[in-house]
Order: sequence, then C-alpha cells, then structure tokens
Amino acid sequence: MFNAIVSAETLQATLDSVGVLVDECKIHLEADGLEIRAVDPANVGMVDLSLSAEAFESYEADGGLIGVNLVRLQDIAGMADKDQLVHLELDEETRKLHISIEGLEYTLALIDPESIREEPDLPDLDLPANIVIEGRDINRAVTAADMVSDHIELGVDAADELFYVSAEGDTDDVHLELDTDDLIDLVAGPAASLFSLDYLKDMNKAIPSDAEVTMELGEEFPVKLHFDIAEGQGTVTYMLAPRIQSN
Amino acid sequence: MFNAIVSAETLQATLDSVGVLVDECKIHLEADGLEIRAVDPANVGMVDLSLSAEAFESYEADGGLIGVNLVRLQDIAGMADKDQLVHLELDEETRKLHISIEGLEYTLALIDPESIREEPDLPDLDLPANIVIEGRDINRAVTAADMVSDHIELGVDAADELFYVSAEGDTDDVHLELDTDDLIDLVAGPAASLFSLDYLKDMNKAIPSDAEVTMELGEEFPVKLHFDIAEGQGTVTYMLAPRIQSN
Amino acid sequence: MFNAIVSAETLQATLDSVGVLVDECKIHLEADGLEIRAVDPANVGMVDLSLSAEAFESYEADGGLIGVNLVRLQDIAGMADKDQLVHLELDEETRKLHISIEGLEYTLALIDPESIREEPDLPDLDLPANIVIEGRDINRAVTAADMVSDHIELGVDAADELFYVSAEGDTDDVHLELDTDDLIDLVAGPAASLFSLDYLKDMNKAIPSDAEVTMELGEEFPVKLHFDIAEGQGTVTYMLAPRIQSN
Repeated sequence: MFNAIVSAETLQATLDSVGVLVDECKIHLEADGLEIRAVDPANVGMVDLSLSAEAFESYEADGGLIGVNLVRLQDIAGMADKDQLVHLELDEETRKLHISIEGLEYTLALIDPESIREEPDLPDLDLPANIVIEGRDINRAVTAADMVSDHIELGVDAADELFYVSAEGDTDDVHLELDTDDLIDLVAGPAASLFSLDYLKDMNKAIPSDAEVTMELGEEFPVKLHFDIAEGQGTVTYMLAPRIQSN
Repeated sequence: MFNAIVSAETLQATLDSVGVLVDECKIHLEADGLEIRAVDPANVGMVDLSLSAEAFESYEADGGLIGVNLVRLQDIAGMADKDQLVHLELDEETRKLHISIEGLEYTLALIDPESIREEPDLPDLDLPANIVIEGRDINRAVTAADMVSDHIELGVDAADELFYVSAEGDTDDVHLELDTDDLIDLVAGPAASLFSLDYLKDMNKAIPSDAEVTMELGEEFPVKLHFDIAEGQGTVTYMLAPRIQSN
Repeated sequence: MFNAIVSAETLQATLDSVGVLVDECKIHLEADGLEIRAVDPANVGMVDLSLSAEAFESYEADGGLIGVNLVRLQDIAGMADKDQLVHLELDEETRKLHISIEGLEYTLALIDPESIREEPDLPDLDLPANIVIEGRDINRAVTAADMVSDHIELGVDAADELFYVSAEGDTDDVHLELDTDDLIDLVAGPAASLFSLDYLKDMNKAIPSDAEVTMELGEEFPVKLHFDIAEGQGTVTYMLAPRIQSN
C-alpha cells in the first residue's frame, strides 16, 4: 500500500538527487518515509536518500518496494509548478503508479525491482577530516576545475587549517583554498584524495547553491557528501570512490 | 491598395497562428480586415483567421490578394518590440510589400498566389459537444500526452458531464478529466475522437495560455478550436481531421 | 611586473571586445594601462583597445608584453559575477598569469607573443563623414540586413543630412535611414561603402546597446567604429575594410 501527496518541489529535488547518477532505481516505501539507494553502472558513485513521511502533505505506506524509470518520473514531476501538489498512489495489482497533478492522471508502469542493479551498501567509514561548506563553493570549484582537467583533488591542510581543491591541467592549474572563515565548519585531519570530475559535476547539479554540505575526507579514501532536501525532512548522501593518484 | 499600421504584438499573433501549420499563405486584403485560410500539406490541419480592420491603428484595403513567405514575415515582425508599430504597404506595381518599423524599411518580395496550395473550405459541421476551456489546460493535456503517445483522444462523458483527454502509450497512460467546475462552459453530447498529437502540439503553440478556447467535438469527427486574438478583434479557427480509431 | 585588480565586468568587456575578432592576442602592460591591437586572420577587421590604469581598483605594470589565449581567459573571467574583483598577477619566471577570484586561483600558461599574428597599424584616415549613433541602432540595422544579404552598405546622404544602411538580397531589401533627429550627431560628407556583414555582426556583439558609437565613413573606404568601455576609462576602435562594390 502506498498513497501519498507531496509538493512538486520536494518530489523534484528527491528525484533529481538520484537521477544525476542512475536512470532507474528501487524505492523502498517504508512506513516512516521513502528510502533510495543506488550506484552508477561503473560502481564509482553512490547515493543514499531518505525522505521522511513528514516531508509529505499526507503519507501512507507499509514497506513495499517498487522499481521506477527515473527519467520518466522526472519528466512527469517536471510538468508541475513547484508549489503544485502531486498525488502518488500504487496499484498493487497492476504494478502501476498513478500520479495525479490537479486532475491530470499519469499511469506509470513500474519496473521489476529484480531487474534493477543491486543496491549498494554505503560503507561506514571513519574519515579523519570533516568540512562543512556551502553548495555554491562546491559549484565554483567544480566549474573552474572542469576548465583544465578531468579530475580534481580534494584535501585538507591540517597545519594551516584549510580545505583545498586542486586541478592540474596540461598547461593551466586551478587552486582554491578555504579557511575556517570561508567554511561553515572544519575538523582538520590528514586528507588528500583524487576524484573523477565527471561524477562530482553530476552530484553538483543536484546540490542547491545555498545548501550546507558536510564533506568527509581521508587520504586516498572515498569522499562522502551529505546535504538536506525538503527543508530538512530529507537527507542525501553521495559517496564517490577515489581515483588512484598517478604521480 | 493596402496600407495599414498595426502593433507588432497583433501582427506576431496573427502570423504565428497560421505559421504553425504552413510556411506560405494567401492573405485576402478585404475592406474590413484580413482573411487567411490555409491547410497543411497532408490536408489534416486547417486554419481560418480573420483580423478586423479595428485591430489596426489604421487600415486601408480594397480587396486584393497577396501570397507571402510566412517564415520570412514572422522573422521581420519578430525584430520589433511588442508595442512597436509596424507599417505595411503594398506596392501594386512591383508586387512587393514594404514593411517599416521605426525607420527600418524591409521590402518583401511577394509570392504569386497561384503558386500557393489552394485554400481549404472549412466545412460547417454541426457537432454535438461544445467545450469552452482555458488555453493552459490544452497545453497541460498536450504536454502530458506527448510523453506517452503520438495520438490523443478527446471526448465527452455526457452522463458525468465531463470533458476528457486520454493518451495510451505502450506502457504508460495519461488521462485528464475536466468537469463543469474546471471548464468555462460545457454542452455535453456524444463525442470521442482520436487525433494526431503532432498537429495539436503545433496548434497549441499558437494558443495563448489565458485564451478561452471553444472546442467542438463529435464521434470520430474533426475537432474545431476557436479562440480570439488582438483583444477580440481577430478570431482563429483550427480544424483537425480525426485519425481512424484502431481498436 | 604586472599586478592588478579589476572588476569582472570591466575585464569581461575588455576581453569580449577583442575576442569577437581573434582567439589569441598580445597585451601590452604599460605603466598607464593595457593596450591591445589585433587583426583577424583574413586581415579585414582590426581592433585597437586601451584600458586606462584608472579603470582598475589597483594597477602596477612596467611595460611588459604577454600573449594570451583569449578564449580561455574569457571563460575564466566569465565565472565571476559582474561585481566581483579579479586579481591578475604575472609570474615573470614561469611566464604564467595568476588569476584569482575570491580565493579561487587559476594559473594560466601564457603564449609566446612571437607566435601570435603581428599587430596591425590602424591607419590614420581622414574620413569625410562622422556619425554618432546608439549601439541599439547598429544592432537593429545589422540584424535586419542579415535576413536578406551577407553584405551591407553604410553611407551618408549629404544633401538630406542623413545616415543610411542598405542591404540588397536576391528578392528582399532592407533600408534604414536615420536623420539628425535620430542620431546623436552627424557631420555629413560624401560616404558610401560596402562591408561584410559577418564582421559587423561580430563587432556588434561587443557593442553595448546603450553605447554612443562614433562612426567614420568615406567612399569605398574602411569604416571606423569608436566606443567607450569601463565607464569611459577604456576605448575600443574597430576598423573594417570595405568590400569592392560589384555593380
């Protein structure tokens, strides 16, 4: 059983956060909210999303699992204005999702969850550095790095108490340093890892510029990025595997 | 003789209403206004447009007929700001149309009307259902239907007093029901016809979202769509032939 | 030595003025400001730009010469908001330009000035007609002419005291006349020359719509276009060679 009403804005933010990594996903319809975990085909980028029942105007579910075509669902949600309400109702028998937006009813055929790539387990890493940064600063760093390279180094200079971003191209370089004044918070620790810019660019698309993003970093370890959606009633965690440093 | 001054906004609305169906057309320069009738190359969609002399700042004509390249004329009108005035003057001798916009003069070579596809006669159908609907609701229905199919059913449920739109795709469906509360007016009657979405999408482009559109519908009959332009001093009628239901 | 701070808006206007003609250029870092001269590969369009030290928040230079990839530099400047400050500093040893925008540092490899096309000498022509015109009128004329032709005639009718623009296509023509009421100023004299529209379109892109543009014209002579950037603390001169009239 699944029957819920949610603002188009919240639904769009939810779908976009996952849609930057995968085209289809499983959605757990838990009693207390939605849960989505997905990994990209190359097993490099992962997402773990929770959207609490409180993020909805009304919400009823009892633990089902559905598979959806995210691209299609994003298109449907995108037809609504941000403040319109979207009604979602699962028809258990036909395995279709009824989506209605002010009288317009869309019947979406679901995908067999078995046919969707297995959900990842986001490992519980105890990473030494913890940076809290505004979404707009991630955007600046990623945009600039993208001009010169296809990978990017994220690190912490524990001595100088600063977070840095660095990208080295064939002729040009990009470097950004943010100290405790520029950051919302910093717990310094030994951290320096290289990442594929393609993935960070995709994740960056889903991060609002005014979001507070908590970044966990280590030395040649994955990075974790956490931020809230739906005014704090949803959380997104991205995890991105490091590239091997080729010094 | 033809010599007229009109706001760019009115000229643009006029040309766009016809330009969604054809690239060139004949324009009748009657004493009391302009008349345009045109049919698309496949003979499926037709338009009948009248623009009263009152829609112009000044208007003089005595019954001539010209052929124009609509695409070119739309480009010229599109250079003007909406509230700028466009002066149109026919040079009978050279068969050219002089178009001037605040000092800028464009001389447009006309097309021999004989070389343009013959004008259609929009048949006078006595259709049983009559729906008055906002342009924005047509837009919603067409946009949603386009996600799942390339044709769309328009119909009336006479018992429940409602107008419906329905599109069935291979896996997904779209359905919209509008009752007398949602519509501006409804005269219910037996009506259900299938149409090509491509044509409706084109017509929809020319329908302002705040327009009151009167739709005449029957059972496997053409649909007629009427709406006003130029603050009521122009009228547009589209007629679209039905597709054969393939049940 | 070169160390300067400038608003992103001023830097963008400077680079765009030159970038419409060439992809790389030499920049003279004079004590009293920047100087750039460049000519397009076909030797048809030239630009001469000066940006006074007063256009900068701070400026120190002692006469160096650098070669830059303009496209790359435009991209970097384009990342900044118009009112952000851009810090430029030359590293003489590595021949790199350090560009920093609110903590973000970009290291741009310079190009050997010897490898860049030689700078043109813009000849001192004593042209008989002088027109002062708003940028938006140049834009209107160029946009309209572009619909019908790939060249454009600029001229002055000395008897009627007016400036005209004319373009003749295979079937359609465009004509614009501006008299002393429409122009900011006019010194009439015998002038009529034909120009490639491609170049004028490029130059037009860099001319603000509210700029006062001084145009010098003769009979089958190059046209010169002057306008200010950086609130009068920079000047741009374009010169465009005429096409041979093919009457």
